[in-house]
Amino acid sequence: MGFTNASKIYKLVGAEATLTEAADLRKYLTGIPTSFGYVVSDKNGNTFYTDSRYIEGAQLALSGSEIAVKQFKAPLIDLLSEYKEVAIPVGRTLYSDYQKLIEAGLEVKDSLPAFTTAMSVKEVYELEFIRKACDITDRAFQALLELIKEGMTENDVAALLEYLMRKFGASGTSFETIVAFGENSSVPHHETGFRKLKYGDIILIDFGCKYGGYCSDCTRTFLFGDDGQHEEFKSAYEKVLTAHMLVKDKVTCGMTGKQADAIARDYLKEFDLDKYFTHSLGHGIGINIHEYPFVSPRSEDKLLNGMVFSDEPGVYFEGKFGIRIEDTITLDKGRIISLTDSDKKLTIL
Amino acid sequence: MGFTNASKIYKLVGAEATLTEAADLRKYLTGIPTSFGYVVSDKNGNTFYTDSRYIEGAQLALSGSEIAVKQFKAPLIDLLSEYKEVAIPVGRTLYSDYQKLIEAGLEVKDSLPAFTTAMSVKEVYELEFIRKACDITDRAFQALLELIKEGMTENDVAALLEYLMRKFGASGTSFETIVAFGENSSVPHHETGFRKLKYGDIILIDFGCKYGGYCSDCTRTFLFGDDGQHEEFKSAYEKVLTAHMLVKDKVTCGMTGKQADAIARDYLKEFDLDKYFTHSLGHGIGINIHEYPFVSPRSEDKLLNGMVFSDEPGVYFEGKFGIRIEDTITLDKGRIISLTDSDKKLTIL
Repeated sequence: MGFTNASKIYKLVGAEATLTEAADLRKYLTGIPTSFGYVVSDKNGNTFYTDSRYIEGAQLALSGSEIAVKQFKAPLIDLLSEYKEVAIPVGRTLYSDYQKLIEAGLEVKDSLPAFTTAMSVKEVYELEFIRKACDITDRAFQALLELIKEGMTENDVAALLEYLMRKFGASGTSFETIVAFGENSSVPHHETGFRKLKYGDIILIDFGCKYGGYCSDCTRTFLFGDDGQHEEFKSAYEKVLTAHMLVKDKVTCGMTGKQADAIARDYLKEFDLDKYFTHSLGHGIGINIHEYPFVSPRSEDKLLNGMVFSDEPGVYFEGKFGIRIEDTITLDKGRIISLTDSDKKLTIL
Repeated sequence: MGFTNASKIYKLVGAEATLTEAADLRKYLTGIPTSFGYVVSDKNGNTFYTDSRYIEGAQLALSGSEIAVKQFKAPLIDLLSEYKEVAIPVGRTLYSDYQKLIEAGLEVKDSLPAFTTAMSVKEVYELEFIRKACDITDRAFQALLELIKEGMTENDVAALLEYLMRKFGASGTSFETIVAFGENSSVPHHETGFRKLKYGDIILIDFGCKYGGYCSDCTRTFLFGDDGQHEEFKSAYEKVLTAHMLVKDKVTCGMTGKQADAIARDYLKEFDLDKYFTHSLGHGIGINIHEYPFVSPRSEDKLLNGMVFSDEPGVYFEGKFGIRIEDTITLDKGRIISLTDSDKKLTIL
């Protein structure tokens, strides 16, 4: 399960050896989460060097795989003494680590393009993890709606939602849960706080979980009772929802991130709402909550079958309110499938 | 509150300008959590450049402070066009970013030593956040003990504990909660799974939360009922607990990390247990769950008043069981104060 990734990257890179340290890339290569370690691949195979905290777990998880597990012993450069050339993910490598390789006389190549290509198109086992994370996300949100009550704080709601995701099998959140009541929803990345919920409030919740090391991402905006003061909100909600659905209808394999972003942005422009859509339409999702491809007004990234990304148009009226409607989606045989998919028709609790 | 940190770092560094990107350092300088942005300081003051997701929130939080907030516009190098010299945290800077500065003809200095010095000794407001995170950690653990029942999975227990921390005011966990039942406790960084709790099991829980952006860290090991099969465990538990308490008694201001580590390690050696103590005694705690100072057999880091770090001796018998007893502690007027402090006498539920 995922354990052929090290050989896949090694072949894609085409260097004498590859050295990988970054936590997310290491997780991709080994299939297991660790906070320290190096993966070295060469024509003879792959070795995962880690410390005593992870040795026993890694040996168990990787027994019978194509990755050997060894105790890491400093200095790093000793792992590479047989090579003339090594590929590292340059854009993810610290200057100080890069310098050590240069000083040791190694020729350095860049492995990052290979990782980006390989990790953006998900394999079946990866899609299964993401699908499970998305199912948990939907189930937890459904269960949460029954439990929201007047007087709860944003923090109370976030705590409940995170508990439900954990309880349904998630290993944790994929980012810090955003719960914004009323005017707080106008800050796209509001810091969840202690404002109390009152009748008629808008509720914006941006949340996701991790399962098997893979992320989900979802946002819903809804009303806690209808006090009749929300005509502007309701009208804007319909536009954002239509923009969101248009993306799902129209994005096809081979389109650029820019073209996908324009589907939502151009539609909102018809109603002069594009100036309130102050962020990108979406981002790739996988081991990282934000990864390749990017779906923004300037992105030339190509959207391909097997990629997973977010569709999250939003509008924000400073000091008043904000709306964002987001699903985690994937391209499958040229069509979009929604992986998170709880009800998006305006909910009034 | 913390908003003079940018000027403090600028003065400590002594370069024409400083540029900071890394998320934890940015949080230290601005006091607020963001996932994108740059802080630039020069003799005229400090500016936080961020994107539309954070602008409104940052302006609110930093109004009246000594940090101006502006919209970031690429390329990065434009922020530095007036300078001949810029200090960046070299060891935390990506090779690719470093190259851009060099190519623009800037002389690069290292600001990381200044950050390490300033961030390791906590200010009063930082200690307050950590103290609060530790109080929540203790309260949640106390409440959890009442709720643990036979048949629960490791994941159920982690979900409950995280819920309690959130409910008591934490913004999230400071790392992925480790719950290990029985033989799973012998893997120091066991991945919480679905093993069910049964009578007589050892339970090891390593957990922590965040409050105001600062971390807590705590580990407890205890028994779920006493089936009379645990004499070896009980004997080792007493030794680990004594090692843990000796550290609290003997560490003083000015000691090195190595000397502190030896207090626990030498004691365990008397019982031939040091070979099962396979990790370091501790690590600094702050905005990051692992930061300076390091308390390991080779660390020359000096432990000073105001520093916060962990005291976590542990022993692991492969395939059988493990024990770790950890508190977040601080040096205050030359003596150790325990910030997490729930009961450490062997608990038998």
